[in-house]
Amino acid sequence: MPQKPSLHTLLSPRLLDLYNVNDSIVVIIDVFRATSTIVTALYNGAEKVIPVSGVEDCIAIGKKLGAVTAGERDGKIIEGLQHGNSPAEYPRNFIEGKTLVLTTTNGTKLLHMALDRNASEVITGSFPNLSAVCDHLASSNKNIILGCSAWKDRFNLEDTLFAGAVISQIKKYFIIHCDSSLMAEDMYQLHCKNIYTFIKQTTHWHRLAGYGLEKDLEYCVTEDVANVLPVYKNNALIVCKS
Amino acid sequence: MPQKPSLHTLLSPRLLDLYNVNDSIVVIIDVFRATSTIVTALYNGAEKVIPVSGVEDCIAIGKKLGAVTAGERDGKIIEGLQHGNSPAEYPRNFIEGKTLVLTTTNGTKLLHMALDRNASEVITGSFPNLSAVCDHLASSNKNIILGCSAWKDRFNLEDTLFAGAVISQIKKYFIIHCDSSLMAEDMYQLHCKNIYTFIKQTTHWHRLAGYGLEKDLEYCVTEDVANVLPVYKNNALIVCKS
Repeated sequence: MPQKPSLHTLLSPRLLDLYNVNDSIVVIIDVFRATSTIVTALYNGAEKVIPVSGVEDCIAIGKKLGAVTAGERDGKIIEGLQHGNSPAEYPRNFIEGKTLVLTTTNGTKLLHMALDRNASEVITGSFPNLSAVCDHLASSNKNIILGCSAWKDRFNLEDTLFAGAVISQIKKYFIIHCDSSLMAEDMYQLHCKNIYTFIKQTTHWHRLAGYGLEKDLEYCVTEDVANVLPVYKNNALIVCKS
Repeated sequence: MPQKPSLHTLLSPRLLDLYNVNDSIVVIIDVFRATSTIVTALYNGAEKVIPVSGVEDCIAIGKKLGAVTAGERDGKIIEGLQHGNSPAEYPRNFIEGKTLVLTTTNGTKLLHMALDRNASEVITGSFPNLSAVCDHLASSNKNIILGCSAWKDRFNLEDTLFAGAVISQIKKYFIIHCDSSLMAEDMYQLHCKNIYTFIKQTTHWHRLAGYGLEKDLEYCVTEDVANVLPVYKNNALIVCKS
């Protein structure tokens, strides 16, 4: 019987070089809110989402492509951009058929780091597309890195919980010799029944709820409400049609 | 009422610069086995323990001071040194009154990193001195960083469980806005009743048990069996007599 592939959980972008990225599918996880917003825009018919690090790039690419530009800092739309980071800003009657150029801090950074290290595939995950991520990984027969984007390189719970949700579903397909993964699964099992209560204890909830974003945050931990698989191809995230 | 001091948990030495080390007590945690062995040697009457990074330093300092030299790689005593990293090697009838020069990888590295960043105090913790660590921190009225040494910079569960054990006892004295700390406490609460069983699931257990060290590892997660407080002063760890 061939050996199962491996699964690891990355707790901070700062630790990425400790893992064998170049033979792995890397799942970019930024629950609050980049990867929740990306999958929502794509689920609602966006043609593609281009994640960029800098505001100037966002404006330039938006102008060149006639695309929607979006990004926030401290809960407010960045000057020069059109929209924010909330998944609620991208309903079908607005975003269908359009290209979204999105600048975020943590998720975008990890995505580009994974590309720079030649990940064999880069996809994005959050609770709204939990099943799509699990289905894809379970059938991939490839090594997996569940990449938590963290917050300014610090460990965060919401990304870890999502990693744990994935592990709970697909662990039988993988060899898991990874304390981060054991922990992530434990944390998800411990809190999955009361996730809307538990998530309010996290540092990121406090930070973002201060901007009046509670509804956004509850949406971001709701499973399978935008259940498509964003995959990175030709410099953009598009829906995987497999 | 004056504000309480802060408490953070560091999950990997790689993340140390994200925290304000220079106004904090840093607790070096390397459960398997550096900080378990250090506290055992001191509890059994060692005059001091000098933690060094390199084997050559270990030999040179040992010769200069007429001290016991110790260090392992891959479960075997390093060539040129006299003893290993097992706490069982340092009973009172051997180590009392002596100086131990110890080279380890993860714990020693983090200790020197904390010193380089001007930590206001550096102490060491592991389950054998859990209460001594908690008593000291609870009465300190200073900011705390619980520093998990990890394994080659990767997150590990045994150090995290010890951080969680400390947090469980002293959290009321501190402000804790730190997802790593919330997670560590959850993991400890989840597994404290069956720690000897749970610890066998960790990656480090598997690595070290392969060298026949099960008894050592069980000792390292046993609370208060060597309950003194190692504090770093004048280039060595000594028992704090406060």
